[in-house]
Amino acid sequence: MTESRLTGPVRVVGVGLLGASIGLGLRAKGVEVILADASPTHLAIAVDYGAGRAAAAGDRPQLVVVCVPPDVTADVVAAELEAYPEAIVTDVASVKLAVYENLKARGADLSRYIGTHPMAGRERGGPMSGRADLFVGRPWVVAAHGGISYQDGSAIDDLILDLGATLVELTPEQHDAAVALVSHVPQVVSSLMARRLIDAPHASVNLAGQGVRDVTRVAASDPELWVQILGQNSAPVAEILRGYRDDLDRFIDALDNMDAPGARRRIAEELFGGNTGVERLPGKHGVDRRYSSLIVMIDDRPGQLARLFNDVGEAGANIEDLRLEHSPGAQIGLAEISVLPEVQQHLTDELAARGWRIAG
Amino acid sequence: MTESRLTGPVRVVGVGLLGASIGLGLRAKGVEVILADASPTHLAIAVDYGAGRAAAAGDRPQLVVVCVPPDVTADVVAAELEAYPEAIVTDVASVKLAVYENLKARGADLSRYIGTHPMAGRERGGPMSGRADLFVGRPWVVAAHGGISYQDGSAIDDLILDLGATLVELTPEQHDAAVALVSHVPQVVSSLMARRLIDAPHASVNLAGQGVRDVTRVAASDPELWVQILGQNSAPVAEILRGYRDDLDRFIDALDNMDAPGARRRIAEELFGGNTGVERLPGKHGVDRRYSSLIVMIDDRPGQLARLFNDVGEAGANIEDLRLEHSPGAQIGLAEISVLPEVQQHLTDELAARGWRIAG
Repeated sequence: MTESRLTGPVRVVGVGLLGASIGLGLRAKGVEVILADASPTHLAIAVDYGAGRAAAAGDRPQLVVVCVPPDVTADVVAAELEAYPEAIVTDVASVKLAVYENLKARGADLSRYIGTHPMAGRERGGPMSGRADLFVGRPWVVAAHGGISYQDGSAIDDLILDLGATLVELTPEQHDAAVALVSHVPQVVSSLMARRLIDAPHASVNLAGQGVRDVTRVAASDPELWVQILGQNSAPVAEILRGYRDDLDRFIDALDNMDAPGARRRIAEELFGGNTGVERLPGKHGVDRRYSSLIVMIDDRPGQLARLFNDVGEAGANIEDLRLEHSPGAQIGLAEISVLPEVQQHLTDELAARGWRIAG
Repeated sequence: MTESRLTGPVRVVGVGLLGASIGLGLRAKGVEVILADASPTHLAIAVDYGAGRAAAAGDRPQLVVVCVPPDVTADVVAAELEAYPEAIVTDVASVKLAVYENLKARGADLSRYIGTHPMAGRERGGPMSGRADLFVGRPWVVAAHGGISYQDGSAIDDLILDLGATLVELTPEQHDAAVALVSHVPQVVSSLMARRLIDAPHASVNLAGQGVRDVTRVAASDPELWVQILGQNSAPVAEILRGYRDDLDRFIDALDNMDAPGARRRIAEELFGGNTGVERLPGKHGVDRRYSSLIVMIDDRPGQLARLFNDVGEAGANIEDLRLEHSPGAQIGLAEISVLPEVQQHLTDELAARGWRIAG
């Protein structure tokens, strides 16, 4: 374990999942952590969990990390800048320009502030869901601006390094446009799709497969939090949604006039565009062309997955991705295993030889 | 293994994934299967794979199953009804009313036809991807109409029973409305979202998390097939998309006027509606309130998942659902395990005691 390069205490304001996780991660690095929260109960729990000690008069933090809901972030950052005139202050809210503009408008000392956004964790849960490992390997955006010195900003680099995350530098505008596209708009698209299910007959929802489940998964997110996020990033989100709506209008028009010349071509082009777009997502997920998959049938009882993965391990294969699927009422599930293409055939043979039923 | 109740040969026309799988499944039940395909190569492969024998003069099938692309299904069904005047004919196309209306309009013998739709398998792949188990435990819709006798229709029940699927009876209209909602509209919504990614900066797509990956996963589907499907079900799909667009217009309007009275409430209501809608999906997927989840950190190397699932099995827990997540460039992955709420704490303790890092 590398030692922290932070030289003074870190004050964490707001001990929900993110704040508590930051406290736990820093404590694991031996950093002194000072905790504050509007809720005395939450604060006491976070202290009990070892995320730090309660704030006291005379604290002199080197760094303040504001982890409160988006709609009060700017107020709290401003108050912390006032209260600790020697500290660097940051926040972890998921929208960056609104906070920055708000602080600038009220004349806050921007030479000691820089906003950040860790792309980690669900934004839910109290201090009890905090984990020291929450940020390991995740991107953590630093919303760079010209008003803070390189030296002062390095305390924030140290924080991110301590927590095992990967620093990504963007302007507040770039950050907000990025999360509008890869987080906020998908949330809206998913929620509006899920709304269509509200009054559907049972017979319809019972035919639901993996596709609609995937499209609507994030529609289960917390509306109160999302109203705040969308409210602070409304212009970039609305701009992307307008492009989406224009495509949708063209699509509906083509469906309404299927026999008109070019209607099918327009639909095909929209769908081909979807192919192109989804291929731009990096990493192991989605339909990733770098991997081959095989589908194994498993009985829905304890120990089956353990046995399967044991056999996969003994066959010398590394599972790159995995998806479980169950049909309603069925006693049989399907495990879709993604592996490197060169091991697929060998693994298929090995699993079949061990009695597994390969379903695709 | 129960014996098939089918009394005569089954002719399968079109030996792609579905046709070949039907052949393999029926052969496993001892049923005589006759195969036909426009491609002599595909036909030869399917025969080699054991899905049945090639068609010959004098064949007298009891049942004909048409497994060709949606846009030629009605033509092929009509030809089969003519060619085999004693056979019951069915098809497996994913849209049902258009085929039925087409056959009715041309005066085909509907007393020997009933359409079906197995909710199984990706609709891709040739005969080599066929599996005898493809339909086990899956819903298989029979699109009931009044023109065929109960006795004649029973051959189709026998087929579905032989293949291990669950029979669901709907009218063609009910079926098409259901798949428009749970399959066709999600496809459009996902494709149009993915289109927004086409020209995005690298910095933006690199921040992509699981949400946008889930929403856009089906956008990787085959556009040619989907043009056919959407073309045959355009009215129900367009109707649902219009409701979606009305919600979207209201949403954009609220974002454009965030400071107007009621704007935030409107956004919150749209998002709450998404919560309500997604809860209507049955089964193990999505954010299922019946299960609790825990997130375990795993190194990205062979054998780690096997070891994890071994330990889960030894802790006596059954994994109800599982999701793997990797950050770009990280050597560490996260396995989100869903279990019954009553075993979550015990499992968390057991895994932690065995050295697993629990990340949430």
